[in-house]
Amino acid sequence: MKAIELQSPGGIDNLKMVERPMPEPGRQEMIIRVKATALNYRDVEIARGSYHTTFPLPLVPLSDGVGEVVAVGPEVSRFKVGDQVCGTFWQRWVGGSFAMAEPSYQRGGPIDGLLSEFARLDEQAAVIVPAHLSDVEAATLPCAAVTAWHALFTEGNLKPGETVLSLGTGGVSLFAVQFARAAGARIIVTSGSDEKLARAKELGAHDGVNYRDTTDWSSAVLALTDGRGADHIIEVGGPQSFAQSLKASARGAQINVIGYLGGSEGAINPLDIFRRQVKARGIPVGSRESFEAMNRALAVNRLRPVIDRVFPWAEAKEAFRHLERGSPFGKVVLDHTK
Amino acid sequence: MKAIELQSPGGIDNLKMVERPMPEPGRQEMIIRVKATALNYRDVEIARGSYHTTFPLPLVPLSDGVGEVVAVGPEVSRFKVGDQVCGTFWQRWVGGSFAMAEPSYQRGGPIDGLLSEFARLDEQAAVIVPAHLSDVEAATLPCAAVTAWHALFTEGNLKPGETVLSLGTGGVSLFAVQFARAAGARIIVTSGSDEKLARAKELGAHDGVNYRDTTDWSSAVLALTDGRGADHIIEVGGPQSFAQSLKASARGAQINVIGYLGGSEGAINPLDIFRRQVKARGIPVGSRESFEAMNRALAVNRLRPVIDRVFPWAEAKEAFRHLERGSPFGKVVLDHTK
Amino acid sequence: MKAIELQSPGGIDNLKMVERPMPEPGRQEMIIRVKATALNYRDVEIARGSYHTTFPLPLVPLSDGVGEVVAVGPEVSRFKVGDQVCGTFWQRWVGGSFAMAEPSYQRGGPIDGLLSEFARLDEQAAVIVPAHLSDVEAATLPCAAVTAWHALFTEGNLKPGETVLSLGTGGVSLFAVQFARAAGARIIVTSGSDEKLARAKELGAHDGVNYRDTTDWSSAVLALTDGRGADHIIEVGGPQSFAQSLKASARGAQINVIGYLGGSEGAINPLDIFRRQVKARGIPVGSRESFEAMNRALAVNRLRPVIDRVFPWAEAKEAFRHLERGSPFGKVVLDHTK
Amino acid sequence: MKAIELQSPGGIDNLKMVERPMPEPGRQEMIIRVKATALNYRDVEIARGSYHTTFPLPLVPLSDGVGEVVAVGPEVSRFKVGDQVCGTFWQRWVGGSFAMAEPSYQRGGPIDGLLSEFARLDEQAAVIVPAHLSDVEAATLPCAAVTAWHALFTEGNLKPGETVLSLGTGGVSLFAVQFARAAGARIIVTSGSDEKLARAKELGAHDGVNYRDTTDWSSAVLALTDGRGADHIIEVGGPQSFAQSLKASARGAQINVIGYLGGSEGAINPLDIFRRQVKARGIPVGSRESFEAMNRALAVNRLRPVIDRVFPWAEAKEAFRHLERGSPFGKVVLDHTK
Repeated sequence: MKAIELQSPGGIDNLKMVERPMPEPGRQEMIIRVKATALNYRDVEIARGSYHTTFPLPLVPLSDGVGEVVAVGPEVSRFKVGDQVCGTFWQRWVGGSFAMAEPSYQRGGPIDGLLSEFARLDEQAAVIVPAHLSDVEAATLPCAAVTAWHALFTEGNLKPGETVLSLGTGGVSLFAVQFARAAGARIIVTSGSDEKLARAKELGAHDGVNYRDTTDWSSAVLALTDGRGADHIIEVGGPQSFAQSLKASARGAQINVIGYLGGSEGAINPLDIFRRQVKARGIPVGSRESFEAMNRALAVNRLRPVIDRVFPWAEAKEAFRHLERGSPFGKVVLDHTK
Repeated sequence: MKAIELQSPGGIDNLKMVERPMPEPGRQEMIIRVKATALNYRDVEIARGSYHTTFPLPLVPLSDGVGEVVAVGPEVSRFKVGDQVCGTFWQRWVGGSFAMAEPSYQRGGPIDGLLSEFARLDEQAAVIVPAHLSDVEAATLPCAAVTAWHALFTEGNLKPGETVLSLGTGGVSLFAVQFARAAGARIIVTSGSDEKLARAKELGAHDGVNYRDTTDWSSAVLALTDGRGADHIIEVGGPQSFAQSLKASARGAQINVIGYLGGSEGAINPLDIFRRQVKARGIPVGSRESFEAMNRALAVNRLRPVIDRVFPWAEAKEAFRHLERGSPFGKVVLDHTK
Repeated sequence: MKAIELQSPGGIDNLKMVERPMPEPGRQEMIIRVKATALNYRDVEIARGSYHTTFPLPLVPLSDGVGEVVAVGPEVSRFKVGDQVCGTFWQRWVGGSFAMAEPSYQRGGPIDGLLSEFARLDEQAAVIVPAHLSDVEAATLPCAAVTAWHALFTEGNLKPGETVLSLGTGGVSLFAVQFARAAGARIIVTSGSDEKLARAKELGAHDGVNYRDTTDWSSAVLALTDGRGADHIIEVGGPQSFAQSLKASARGAQINVIGYLGGSEGAINPLDIFRRQVKARGIPVGSRESFEAMNRALAVNRLRPVIDRVFPWAEAKEAFRHLERGSPFGKVVLDHTK
Repeated sequence: MKAIELQSPGGIDNLKMVERPMPEPGRQEMIIRVKATALNYRDVEIARGSYHTTFPLPLVPLSDGVGEVVAVGPEVSRFKVGDQVCGTFWQRWVGGSFAMAEPSYQRGGPIDGLLSEFARLDEQAAVIVPAHLSDVEAATLPCAAVTAWHALFTEGNLKPGETVLSLGTGGVSLFAVQFARAAGARIIVTSGSDEKLARAKELGAHDGVNYRDTTDWSSAVLALTDGRGADHIIEVGGPQSFAQSLKASARGAQINVIGYLGGSEGAINPLDIFRRQVKARGIPVGSRESFEAMNRALAVNRLRPVIDRVFPWAEAKEAFRHLERGSPFGKVVLDHTK
């Protein structure tokens, strides 16, 4: 079968289409024909070698993807041939606390990802996709969407009427807007682009703050909430942003520390966590149980992921460069049927 | 000031308009001019003497109501003259577990209720009402709405995509439909009337089951959920209904035991709680913290309580009889300005 | 290898020692040499055919056991040859809610149990045993101990100073006493035997109630708690007992519905769950995450399971009859090295 | 009655004994004769004017104390004359989330504290003290003990077998050691004094790390936990310490940010909260519900607060200086009967 490998010494130029042996399913495993895959910034960093850890090469990239089950092992009970499934980011995190996840079982590094014609999945590491989604839409769910769900619901117990501050318009942040709106929350989005703020409002955000015009955006958030502050913050901005997130927090606010799109340099005084009486926690994507719960929410509320652009999978390099270059509004997807 | 007392020996005919001294606020208390009150079935039972406990008479009935603050004690810090407020059902349950509520501090029995021109409230036992609600709408919140909120969110942590089974179309059940819909849940309602089912769907229910045509309604619920069952059940039907609620339950379902509109006779084998692996719990209205959280949800989602009929407060007897007679769709309210 | 099968048509007399092929490990599986196994009442019911469901025969019984890893599959990462491990009751419940457990993956029925020389375990369905325990002690953990842990801690969040009412002196109840004592709780035990009550006190119970002398034992529990009642109840008695457990409950008490040692006949009015404002829930053993957390507690507190009697594994029939006959104080274990 | 005021412009020298009018109880208030009070570092900072906020002077200091009820208002239902009670730190935080606390209702600033012969308490802001404690012991509970309880149990759901890292040997840290030991946890303590480490072990700590000998104490904690790290951290050290607490954390660890005994200067990169996958939260003492739960734990486990030194209350200045000077092992108490 065909697969695209990230070959030594790495770098987007070293994404090469190769021929690999067709995988065979074990007792509780299945083979899927990959129909679409999606990129996360993590994949770009792994390709460039700028990820915080390195993996042996060659490696098949991409944790996110969807496929059709074409073969099942003798003991597979959760799926049958013909099912449309996504793999999970953590191959071993079925449910429970993050301590149950096993770091050496991350899809797309160190474990081969889905950028191939076919892939082998443990039946414990896959979920049925919502029927109303296209392959291109379903491919985007495993990493960014589950991260937003885990932050707001599995950890955050978001309730209707609470205020969610979603920073920026990256993948996790847009899913957070859609989920929070479906859950009856009040949503504030930040962006450096009025055009993106307008699109975020179409997705469900109630208010937008342009951090280029309003550099002290935390004060704008306090003003929008009558001084109360935000109850849940999707903190993807990094240290500089975190300092303002603290100021924008309601008492007891939950700050979900997820990324560093604004850069990883900077520092805060941890006593501000005490002075502001907030909760700050890291969010490591989520478990299969979270993924399955999220899929029910997508189905009941007919939510559809936002797609920025779709490339034929043979043009993976261009897709990686597209994500590396700019900050797309929505997910970048590879179509494996073209 | 004028007040309506339930006078000895009780009975709806012994609801009598009387003159009472104007209340004075203590250090941390305030006086409100009552603008509207609402009835719960509990009030009818207290009036008829069929409530599970009895209170000394005369008693001013009704736990639910809204008013305008007209005087405040010297140490009041949470409210000011002119604020529109509701009292809480539990005068002493500010927050935390139900163990913090004090039974002798229930409004409308044993403590005098709000069926009067003016009333005295401890500032700890009142909340600001959502600005978008009319007085008639706001008056309905303290008991039925907080009960539904406490069951689904404070105790239930309802998440988008979960299935809520709301039995009947009484006050608590209709609020549950509106809240669950705002929270992105999937909602199934039961009723003996197709017309009420149609109105429940207008409020947000996805499906309705008529238990007169479909006496085995639990099977209908299982069919509507592909055999999965309901995750949250608003159980207001009583023992007969509870047996079917167990059958309609998903694994780990939360059955909120709230009332007995279908009668209080009957029994179940508690081992079915084990065999079905469900959680069953009593719901005692809720705390002031739940009330305030609910009000934020009402405001963000512009939800409005369903009103069945409004009576001038001097016609309280007719209102009690109206609720006693039939099963109204929505709340029965008394207008204190007429 | 040797194994003891429950052969058709079932019955303790049809437990037969047979020769079976040596198992081979799959990719993520391992082979253990079984060193000891333990019986639960469920095993007796399965053998007698009185269990609520039936399984295809022949079946190798027993969910509980300990063994040494003697072979591992090529992808096994959690264990190595020489590790001492227990299997989990639910082969597929790694963590999260009970909805993640898969009923067709219960050890000892429908899946073959551990009553054999060797057994095959998925590495996801096994845990390292605490180093301070003997094989005979470690064999008793998977079912009864995890059930007590799941009830009190995973679901119950037991805190120091809360009152635990543990009914009877069966396996789950004795583990509950030991765990509750280690957790700083106050413990009340019931039994029909003063001698067993005395032994339960040696294990950590503060008080004992003999339900033969004190048939109205719920009143005794209220008296022992100054009328407050128990916060957590290990309800293994069945419907008759449940009615008194309701009376013995504190407001908001958690009643863990686990068994029916006092018989499965009887009924309660579910409205009493509302009137007493309790939470009642079924307890389905527990997840691997609960098992691992429990093992840390056993190690830190040097807790040792109570053993009633040990039989050579060839005398399995006698062990089954011993458990069937009486109500032992502690676990009945089979030694596979004799 | 006599009282000691902190008089303008503040400073320990301006703690002056004065005559004040005898307080009168309101409807739901009571008067206590103060028997003992205790100091927290907060009180020293308020006296010195180094607290992060300032309060109008004169102010009667001290949030912590115990007294006997000598008079009750006409509507008091929770207490009677003769009861031994402690006041709560937060006069308005009965239960629920910290958002229910009202900052202007902190005892000892801005509200007058208990450093007086008599004091007035709202019955909602007081608890019965455990019967086995002396007045000197009971006086120490409201602030430091409730803080440790709230961190470990109300927020932390500490379970037996988890590892608690308690930094230093201040008031909160020593209560954390006693509570964690009663709860069956494994406890590691840090100190700059081997003698204090030895005394902490007598209180229940399993291991001690001297941070003077072992400046890289986080590595010592990892070594003591086989690389797993601590599950709960009582972080009272400030920014410098926080950086090492992050290194000493288990995956998913709960870091309770409480104080800054090691100084308030320093910074961390908040992305380390993401990289280490921990939860960090501020701890604001706790609610009355937490206080009452803690008292039950103290009673069941016969725990006694550690007392460093007792002064006659007329020597309050010396007591403040004693706490200001050194780092006592245990609480500094004032005896109001001498």
